[in-house]
Amino acid sequence: MTKIVYLDNGATTQIDPEVLKAMLPYFTEAYGNAASLHAKGVEAKDALEKARKVIAKSINAEQEEIIFTSGGTESNNFALKAIAFANKDKGNHIITTKVEHKCILETCKWLEAQGFEITYLNVDKDGFIKLDELENSITKKTILVSVIHGNNEIGTIMDLQSIGNICKKNDVYFHTDACQSYTKTEIDVKKQNLDLVTINAHKIHGPKGVGALFVKKGTKIKQWQHGGAHEFNLRAGTENVSGIVGFAKAVAISDKKHIEYVTKLRDKLISGMLEIPDVILNGPTGNKRLCNNANFSFKGIEGEAIGGYLDSFGVCSSTGSACSSIKLEPSYVLKAIGKTNEQANGSLRLTLSKYTTEEEIDFVLKKMPEIVKKLRSFSPIYKVVNYVLKKSN
Amino acid sequence: MTKIVYLDNGATTQIDPEVLKAMLPYFTEAYGNAASLHAKGVEAKDALEKARKVIAKSINAEQEEIIFTSGGTESNNFALKAIAFANKDKGNHIITTKVEHKCILETCKWLEAQGFEITYLNVDKDGFIKLDELENSITKKTILVSVIHGNNEIGTIMDLQSIGNICKKNDVYFHTDACQSYTKTEIDVKKQNLDLVTINAHKIHGPKGVGALFVKKGTKIKQWQHGGAHEFNLRAGTENVSGIVGFAKAVAISDKKHIEYVTKLRDKLISGMLEIPDVILNGPTGNKRLCNNANFSFKGIEGEAIGGYLDSFGVCSSTGSACSSIKLEPSYVLKAIGKTNEQANGSLRLTLSKYTTEEEIDFVLKKMPEIVKKLRSFSPIYKVVNYVLKKSN
Repeated sequence: MTKIVYLDNGATTQIDPEVLKAMLPYFTEAYGNAASLHAKGVEAKDALEKARKVIAKSINAEQEEIIFTSGGTESNNFALKAIAFANKDKGNHIITTKVEHKCILETCKWLEAQGFEITYLNVDKDGFIKLDELENSITKKTILVSVIHGNNEIGTIMDLQSIGNICKKNDVYFHTDACQSYTKTEIDVKKQNLDLVTINAHKIHGPKGVGALFVKKGTKIKQWQHGGAHEFNLRAGTENVSGIVGFAKAVAISDKKHIEYVTKLRDKLISGMLEIPDVILNGPTGNKRLCNNANFSFKGIEGEAIGGYLDSFGVCSSTGSACSSIKLEPSYVLKAIGKTNEQANGSLRLTLSKYTTEEEIDFVLKKMPEIVKKLRSFSPIYKVVNYVLKKSN
Repeated sequence: MTKIVYLDNGATTQIDPEVLKAMLPYFTEAYGNAASLHAKGVEAKDALEKARKVIAKSINAEQEEIIFTSGGTESNNFALKAIAFANKDKGNHIITTKVEHKCILETCKWLEAQGFEITYLNVDKDGFIKLDELENSITKKTILVSVIHGNNEIGTIMDLQSIGNICKKNDVYFHTDACQSYTKTEIDVKKQNLDLVTINAHKIHGPKGVGALFVKKGTKIKQWQHGGAHEFNLRAGTENVSGIVGFAKAVAISDKKHIEYVTKLRDKLISGMLEIPDVILNGPTGNKRLCNNANFSFKGIEGEAIGGYLDSFGVCSSTGSACSSIKLEPSYVLKAIGKTNEQANGSLRLTLSKYTTEEEIDFVLKKMPEIVKKLRSFSPIYKVVNYVLKKSN
């Protein structure tokens, strides 16, 4: 079998062996239900609360402000729907952006069908919202602002603190989807005035099927899953103890050194790729970009075609978010930052992790020019465009 | 440490080592996102669909009728809410029973607040609904009947086929919560005319945090979690591949031999317990009772007190469902089968598994008379009751 070069860490990540090791006892020995009152239950409950503490601390929250869920999509659905229904006496207006993850946008669409009004903020060429547009969009009916922290496609890191200040000043709740940014750049719920934060485990070398929603004490919110009194009466259902323990371990072993390491590799990858003719970088550069994200558009070739070629060399990549990949639509994120349909179709996302090696980046940088050249030799669009350009010069 | 005798398998179960073994590669090697188009994604997707096939077959369903969720509570919320909202043009009436799991009852309460009308069917002294009461409750506005299959507290196994026939005849959807009964007694969605079935993994020696909802092809239902196109557009979110693989393994290795084995131990436990003075069995006997469930009331003593004593001997038990255990309320299930408050407070649930041994049952049967005697010697209620009874004889 071909050696795999896994550059799709924005979709999901390999579990750290330390995470798996931490989880194992909760499959085999400490298998109790955390809601049970006997020894096995208490053992599970202790592990659950210890994990909650680790995660709370990582974003400067209190322990009872962390509600465990089944992942990022659930947390985002939970945050928007539960805030909307709990605060509709105040108003029916929610503000979000055009570059959110699909699960925020689809939830907003559903909320529109239930009578809520949604404002979708524009973004600039690098994917940032304009703070004055946000401020001007807030009305007396606004109950919630939801802005993605680290963009899953183009890596833009939004300025949470400035957004948080505006929300606080205007007395509206502030939610961020931080699935891509968590442990990669600072989240401090107090400093950034956050009321709700979505995080999950499988993007940070933890297991799939577990996430959390930070809900600030005193937030007016409704129970999401109905049933038992689990998770401070907000999310019923037997807690996934092994998953939660793994989640906390992934957080505990995350390290600033990895950020520096991955940033260097990312920048090497970006520089190398931009040497290929007619390749552009989508999204910002430097520390306003997720340390592990690179996204390029290739004139005249479809992203899927490059992805397919890379796959044949064992390189895992994506054209956008994994959640949208089976639909093969042009990226709405790239469209929102002003790219043409052709550029949005010709994009490739490469997302790194602490396990990515310099050799792997070198391998990709060696293969890419060949792939691009080959695909362009088949591409009628590229030939026509180049012909027109030559003629016009 | 005291040796643990785990008799709380109704709350959760120990993972089978074969299940864990099947899961491990999906943590370490095959960690891809099942929605990704590259080699790692395809590997995950293949595992996902293989698991779906195993689970579909186990209830005589089609592969595309199995929607993976995060567990029983989610599946029950999903079934009721998504059917309610998708069918409210037909009617706003839902029929359920007084002995459902808390997550059905709480979801119904929430639906009532949204304008739905709920009929809660009575049950007889063993926990069975009366079929004529069901039939008489159906109106033109009825859209759904939801009846628990195997009762989580008293083990009553409802007659799905007769209920299914009534639902089919009256053209209303039929959902059953089969978390406790799955793999322990037959579920055949075609024969029993089921439209929706809730099942989960952690009650059958699989992992926590994973369940499924069977949704019959053609059912008018709405998407539950909004986002990507996962799970046939009904439940967005990255699939928990390792958990789902473990779930399917737990189903694949379930064996009728275990049912026979556990039934024998259950009946030995019941006979032995009924030899203790003033102990009654709650729920039915024989094959109309879950093979692993026993539930007793003890005159004059609180269930929690017995549970606490048993715990000190390393025996894990419960007083009702784990989901309600932290609330310490008298069991509404026992109240629904006509028990007094005292009986409902004096109840103890012992739930077995294939890992339960005859020695463990012998140990419990040896300890119980001592515990009961001791607790009754402290109990003012028991003394007063006995005094009154003696006087009246």
